[in-house]
Amino acid sequence: MQLSHLDKEGNAIMVDVSEKKDSFRTAVAKGIIYVNGEVLQQIKENTNKKGNVLGVAEVAGIMAVKNTSHLIPLTHPIQISNSEIHFNIDSEKKIIEVECRVKCFGKTGVEMEALTGVSVALLTIYDMCKAVDKNMMISNVYLKRKEGGKSGLFLSER
Amino acid sequence: MQLSHLDKEGNAIMVDVSEKKDSFRTAVAKGIIYVNGEVLQQIKENTNKKGNVLGVAEVAGIMAVKNTSHLIPLTHPIQISNSEIHFNIDSEKKIIEVECRVKCFGKTGVEMEALTGVSVALLTIYDMCKAVDKNMMISNVYLKRKEGGKSGLFLSER
Amino acid sequence: MQLSHLDKEGNAIMVDVSEKKDSFRTAVAKGIIYVNGEVLQQIKENTNKKGNVLGVAEVAGIMAVKNTSHLIPLTHPIQISNSEIHFNIDSEKKIIEVECRVKCFGKTGVEMEALTGVSVALLTIYDMCKAVDKNMMISNVYLKRKEGGKSGLFLSER
Amino acid sequence: MQLSHLDKEGNAIMVDVSEKKDSFRTAVAKGIIYVNGEVLQQIKENTNKKGNVLGVAEVAGIMAVKNTSHLIPLTHPIQISNSEIHFNIDSEKKIIEVECRVKCFGKTGVEMEALTGVSVALLTIYDMCKAVDKNMMISNVYLKRKEGGKSGLFLSER
Amino acid sequence: MQLSHLDKEGNAIMVDVSEKKDSFRTAVAKGIIYVNGEVLQQIKENTNKKGNVLGVAEVAGIMAVKNTSHLIPLTHPIQISNSEIHFNIDSEKKIIEVECRVKCFGKTGVEMEALTGVSVALLTIYDMCKAVDKNMMISNVYLKRKEGGKSGLFLSER
Amino acid sequence: MQLSHLDKEGNAIMVDVSEKKDSFRTAVAKGIIYVNGEVLQQIKENTNKKGNVLGVAEVAGIMAVKNTSHLIPLTHPIQISNSEIHFNIDSEKKIIEVECRVKCFGKTGVEMEALTGVSVALLTIYDMCKAVDKNMMISNVYLKRKEGGKSGLFLSER
Repeated sequence: MQLSHLDKEGNAIMVDVSEKKDSFRTAVAKGIIYVNGEVLQQIKENTNKKGNVLGVAEVAGIMAVKNTSHLIPLTHPIQISNSEIHFNIDSEKKIIEVECRVKCFGKTGVEMEALTGVSVALLTIYDMCKAVDKNMMISNVYLKRKEGGKSGLFLSER
Repeated sequence: MQLSHLDKEGNAIMVDVSEKKDSFRTAVAKGIIYVNGEVLQQIKENTNKKGNVLGVAEVAGIMAVKNTSHLIPLTHPIQISNSEIHFNIDSEKKIIEVECRVKCFGKTGVEMEALTGVSVALLTIYDMCKAVDKNMMISNVYLKRKEGGKSGLFLSER
Repeated sequence: MQLSHLDKEGNAIMVDVSEKKDSFRTAVAKGIIYVNGEVLQQIKENTNKKGNVLGVAEVAGIMAVKNTSHLIPLTHPIQISNSEIHFNIDSEKKIIEVECRVKCFGKTGVEMEALTGVSVALLTIYDMCKAVDKNMMISNVYLKRKEGGKSGLFLSER
Repeated sequence: MQLSHLDKEGNAIMVDVSEKKDSFRTAVAKGIIYVNGEVLQQIKENTNKKGNVLGVAEVAGIMAVKNTSHLIPLTHPIQISNSEIHFNIDSEKKIIEVECRVKCFGKTGVEMEALTGVSVALLTIYDMCKAVDKNMMISNVYLKRKEGGKSGLFLSER
Repeated sequence: MQLSHLDKEGNAIMVDVSEKKDSFRTAVAKGIIYVNGEVLQQIKENTNKKGNVLGVAEVAGIMAVKNTSHLIPLTHPIQISNSEIHFNIDSEKKIIEVECRVKCFGKTGVEMEALTGVSVALLTIYDMCKAVDKNMMISNVYLKRKEGGKSGLFLSER
Repeated sequence: MQLSHLDKEGNAIMVDVSEKKDSFRTAVAKGIIYVNGEVLQQIKENTNKKGNVLGVAEVAGIMAVKNTSHLIPLTHPIQISNSEIHFNIDSEKKIIEVECRVKCFGKTGVEMEALTGVSVALLTIYDMCKAVDKNMMISNVYLKRKEGGKSGLFLSER
C-alpha cells in the first residue's frame, strides 16, 4: 500500500507536548460587546427580563473554559486549576468588557481556554439581551497576558 | 473604564487549587430511592421490561462521575483513577440504596463526583421503573466518607 | 449463527415512541437539601464565598435539563420548549427547596428532564456550600405533577 | 414554606416557546480576525504547520453550531437543517472574515447558533496560528441577517 | 473584499435538509468483533472481571446513537424515537455480532446513528475484554437496511 | 440491610489505576473502509460534494480521541499529549486505510483512544461518501502497537 499524497500534506496536526515539562501557566484574555443604552441600563440595574445577565454569562464562561478541548479541534485536554470571569462596564462607550483568567499546572498553555471563556461569556450576554438590542457586536477578543512554559511571559501590546 | 459593582460582588468563584498539593483522595457517597413492591420484585428478579435496572444504572453512574465537571459549574476537571457503584436492596423498607466510591490522585476532592454518580444512578433507576411506579422518591443523598488532602479524613455522622 | 440467550433477555430497552402522537407535555419535580444555619444565612444574604449560590444552581439546573438524554441512558432526546428552576427557603426546617418545571411538544414525557434539573441544581448548591457544611443531605426528589400524552394528568400524592 | 425573595427576582429565565409556531428560520452571522502577514500568507498557501487552517475551522464551526444549546445556558435545543461556514480573506486589511449561515424549521430563531459557529471558527483559526502571531484579535462578530418567525426579516445596519 | 479561492472549493458541506419532508425512517447496521476462545467463554458465562460485557456494550451503543451528531461532523441532530442493540454469538467462528436498529420521524436518515451505535458497542466489548485478548479485531461494519425518505427501501447485498 | 446478590456479581467494574505508575504510553490502531471506484476517485481528486473527505475525517478522529472517556463506559479520563490520524489509499483493493497514533503520560494505556479515533474517522468517511456508495464497509479495526506501562511493548501479529 502506497502512502497517499493527501497524507503527506497533513490537514490537522496536534502539537506533540509529550516532551514538554509541566509548569505553572496562566493566561488572561479580554473582549467587549457593544450594546445600546437600554441593555446597559438593564445590566446595571439587573432588570433584564431573562435574568441576571452577568451572573449567567459568568457561569457560561467558566463552563466553556472546561469545555475548550471539545470545541477547538487541535487543543489538548487540560486540568485547569482555576478560571475566573470579570466584567467591566463602560457607560460612556456603551460597552461591557469581559476578562477571563485561567491557571493550570501542565504541559501546554491555557490561552485558548481563556479566549473561549471570554467568547462564550460574550455570546451569553448577547443571547440574554438580544430581545432588547438586535445590533450588538462582539469585538476586540484578544490575549492580554500569558505566563509559564518555555516561552515565558507574553504581554499584549494593546 | 471603571470596575462595576456587579464585578466586585462576584457571582461564581471557582476555588483556585493551583497551590494545593497532589494527594490520593477518595470519597464515598450514598443515596436511596423509595419504590413500590412491584418495582422491588422486578429488580430482584430482573424482570423489568426496560432491562437490567441496576446494570444500566451502574453504567450511567460511572459515566456521570466522569462528566461531573461539565455538570456542576464550579468543579474542577479531575482525572479519576477509579469509580464504583454498589447497590443494596432493603425489601422491608422498600428501598434501593446506591453507593458510589471514587478515587483520584490530584489537587482537589472527589465528593462531587461521588454525589453525582449516586444521583444519576438513582435517576436511571427512576427512569427504568417509572412505568411501574409513579410515586418513587430519591432521598438521603449525602457524603459518607472522604479522605485525602489537607483536611484529612471526614466521616459522616449519619 | 444462533441467537444468544443473553440477547433474548435484553439488558436495556429504549421505549419505541415512534407510534406516539405529539402533544404538549409538562412536568414539575421537586427536591430539597438540608443545610446548617450558616449555609442558610449565607444563601439568604448572598454572602457565600463561592458566589451567588442559587443563581449558579439555577443555571446548572437549566443546562442539565437540556443534557438529560446524554445522562440517563434510555431517555429520548427531547426539544424542550421551556425549563424553569425555582427556590424556596424554609429557615425553620433549615432546608432549601428546588422546583423544576419543564415543557415540550413531543412524543414522550419530560419527567426525567425535570428530575434531572432538580438533582443537578441541588448538587450545585451542595458544591458551593460544602466548605461551610460537610453534612448537607439531598432528599425528597420526586415528580409532583405531569401532564400531556396518553396517560393524561398525574398529581403526586405527597 | 414562604417564597424567598431570591426566587421572585429570578436569575435565569428561559423564554417559553411552547406557544410559538414552527416556521422556517435562517440566520447569518459574521466576524473577523486580524492576523499578521505571515499568518495570512500561510493560510493562502495552505502552509501552516498545524494543517489546513480554514478547513479545520470550518469543521469546528459547524460542530459548534450543533453544540450551541449546551454552551449558551438559556438557548433552546434546535434541530438545525443546515449550517454553512464561509471564509473571505482581505489581504490588504490583513483580516480573515468568517460567515456562518444556519437554517431550521422550528419555534425559535437560530441567531445564537450562527454567532456561536462564527466565534468557534475564529477561535480555531486563532489556535492554529498562535505559534506564528501572538497578537491576533477576533472582532466585529455580529448578526447580519435573520428571517422567519413572528418578527420577520432583520437586516443589520452594518 | 474578494472571495478567496479556499472558500470556493468548500471543505465541509452539510446537506441542506430544510426542503425534505418528515417521514418515518429506520436503519439497521451490523458489525462483528473477532475474539479468542477465552473471551467468548467469559461472555457466554458472564464471568469477565470487568462485568457484564454485552450489558455494558448495549448501554454504550444506545448512548452513542444519541451522540452521533456531536461525533460525525456533517450529520444533523435527529430526535430518534427508538434505538436497539442486539448481539449474536458464533462460537465456531469466534465472533460476536452486534446489530443496531434506529428509528426516527424526521427529515434525514438514521444510518449514521445505527453505524455509530454498532461501532461504539463493539469498541466497548473490546475495552472490557482487552486484558484477556490483545488481538481482537472489529470488522464488517455496514448498513444492512434502510427505509423511509425519498430514496425508499435499501437492502444491503451482503 | 443485606447486600443483594446483584451487587456481588458486579455489572461494570472500572479498573482501579490509583496504584499504577505514570509512564509514557503510546498506541497505534488501524482500520479500513471498502469503497467503490467512484468514492475512491472523488477522494483522490478531492471532488466529493460534501467537501474534503479525509480532511474532515481527520478532525473528527482527533476530536473523538479526546472524547473517548465519555463514549466507552469503563475507560479512564486521560490527558493525551498527542493524537495523529493518517490515511493510506489502496486503489487496487479499493480501500482507504486509517491509522491513529495516540500518546500520553499517565497511569493507563491509550489503545481505546486510538481505536476510537480510527472508528470515528472511518464513520466520517462513510458519512461523507454515503450518497455515492451505499455498500461501503468498515473493517479490520485493530490495535497495531502499544508501548509503555507494566506490560511493555505489544506488537500485533497481523
